[in-house]
Amino acid sequence: MSEFRLNRATKEWIILATERAKRPQQFLVKSEKPKIPPFDPLCPFCPGNEKKTPPEVYSLRQRNSRPDQPGWRVRVITNKFPALEPTEKMVKITGGFFRTALGVGKHEVIIETPRHNQIFATLSLKQAEEVCLVCWRRYLFLEKDRRFKLIMIFRNHGVSAGTSLKHPHIQVIALPLIPASIRHPLEEAMSYYDDHGTCVFCDMMQEEIKAKKRIILENEKFVAFHPFASRAPFETWIIPKKHNACFGSASESEVKSMASVLRRVLRKMYDRLGDPDYNLIFRTAPIKDTQEDYYHWYIQILPRLTTPAGFELGSGVYINTSLPEETAKFMRE
Amino acid sequence: MSEFRLNRATKEWIILATERAKRPQQFLVKSEKPKIPPFDPLCPFCPGNEKKTPPEVYSLRQRNSRPDQPGWRVRVITNKFPALEPTEKMVKITGGFFRTALGVGKHEVIIETPRHNQIFATLSLKQAEEVCLVCWRRYLFLEKDRRFKLIMIFRNHGVSAGTSLKHPHIQVIALPLIPASIRHPLEEAMSYYDDHGTCVFCDMMQEEIKAKKRIILENEKFVAFHPFASRAPFETWIIPKKHNACFGSASESEVKSMASVLRRVLRKMYDRLGDPDYNLIFRTAPIKDTQEDYYHWYIQILPRLTTPAGFELGSGVYINTSLPEETAKFMRE
Repeated sequence: MSEFRLNRATKEWIILATERAKRPQQFLVKSEKPKIPPFDPLCPFCPGNEKKTPPEVYSLRQRNSRPDQPGWRVRVITNKFPALEPTEKMVKITGGFFRTALGVGKHEVIIETPRHNQIFATLSLKQAEEVCLVCWRRYLFLEKDRRFKLIMIFRNHGVSAGTSLKHPHIQVIALPLIPASIRHPLEEAMSYYDDHGTCVFCDMMQEEIKAKKRIILENEKFVAFHPFASRAPFETWIIPKKHNACFGSASESEVKSMASVLRRVLRKMYDRLGDPDYNLIFRTAPIKDTQEDYYHWYIQILPRLTTPAGFELGSGVYINTSLPEETAKFMRE
Repeated sequence: MSEFRLNRATKEWIILATERAKRPQQFLVKSEKPKIPPFDPLCPFCPGNEKKTPPEVYSLRQRNSRPDQPGWRVRVITNKFPALEPTEKMVKITGGFFRTALGVGKHEVIIETPRHNQIFATLSLKQAEEVCLVCWRRYLFLEKDRRFKLIMIFRNHGVSAGTSLKHPHIQVIALPLIPASIRHPLEEAMSYYDDHGTCVFCDMMQEEIKAKKRIILENEKFVAFHPFASRAPFETWIIPKKHNACFGSASESEVKSMASVLRRVLRKMYDRLGDPDYNLIFRTAPIKDTQEDYYHWYIQILPRLTTPAGFELGSGVYINTSLPEETAKFMRE
């Protein structure tokens, strides 16, 4: 018989459908992905094509090289087709029944490597650290802007995860408002804090460490695990041991430590599942909530191994066909 | 520049990304779908294979035919691999930090037609009415069961919408608890009711009728439109003009009227977009809220013409690349 499980932090119920359960190895991605060349002359993110993108806003590059020229290791640009764009004004909600607001915000792209066919899982540790440090520095830069309320950092890997460009990149979107679906989990975490006087994420991490069986790996500063109430097979959380509501409150050494764990987790996923498509999301409190005791930033990785359908879209309850205890063990081996 | 739009009923912001905007006709599904035979000897939902499914719990069938034999027009069975199953007990939440509950509930399949290669869009009006009446009767039957709190009726059309079996069918899942993502929109609707003393869905419908430009079609009892804040291209709502919180409170003549509108909407989608994959969801209040003034049941159709990626999963804010005013016009033509 199947089982409901509650994610205490997000207050999401999931259904573990043991009747349909699959062994972890059954999720191995079998389809041969097309070979990708190390350089694609048509790719706007490849070195030599810097003029095909908007000017860079930040980069890590060789001492003698110049902006918008080759010689960079990590390069940040404004998205050519931005979902949101900065204006001088703060966002203002207008309208009668139908409310609108100008699409004020910022949409940046962090190009992770000059190599077109690289993937995060196979970056060198140094390169992974640099990419994560750039994410963090862009966060710190954007959070100073009073027009923005929330900074979303995310990575789409593979076509089914919504990638339009193959060249490895991370996206950053600064939002001028706090969406309801961000506010609700914050309120749930606040309600837990009211009840217990502790951060629900800190408690979850400690309980997961105690339970052991869903842990993938751990270092001094971070834990990676498949949550008790994973909504999809191989869903992975990477959470800092030190309590901080916002990603921007992490220290430089924490960010480097995160890079090491993230790279190892993605490498394990690559080795054991055969390069599955996935979305990676930095979950962080809104900018003003930096000092809050009840929220805790973390990275959520959602592999695209199953397709959420009408039931999931309608109820928000995900049917998971794998046991996180088994998938975590499979990843540890 | 792009534009934020607020769905007043769900409190979801969406981004209309006009920079990336597509013309309605660009969403035409070009890929040739494989020809489906009218009968598949291996399909458990095809007539003659009734023994391959669990016994039927309800059917509309020829006078002289017997249960679990051919002769049916619409057939309801328990899902062979149910996400939830009934037990004699009410659901009970147990556990310490990690909360679980037995997967108590009901998971039924409504086989819409004996014909394997039929689709809802091309059903006869009579057959469409019968299918919708069966949905409604199953709702009325299941809502009497004190173990259940919410009844989800949904339809997945096509592989990208999560269909595993081609034979046209609708699924019904009775849940023993109310998930947070159902509770939150109810609370938002309640908050609107507190502010205005009116149902936000009634107001939205009236405003859409007044604005005209996003209406697809209308009859005496229902309106179909592309919402002002559509989260995906061609998202469609079919809403009853009469206020009722629950689908079960609709009258028989309303259900027939709904069938006619639904069939015409899906037919238009089929004719103009070339049979796109979609999820269809009956949005209804939890069972106990039948008398509530602030919620309003409706049908939501979400075509799978774009792929939600990390930003949508992380923020709950959907980036829509089409104007609902344009897509609705395209559908009306």
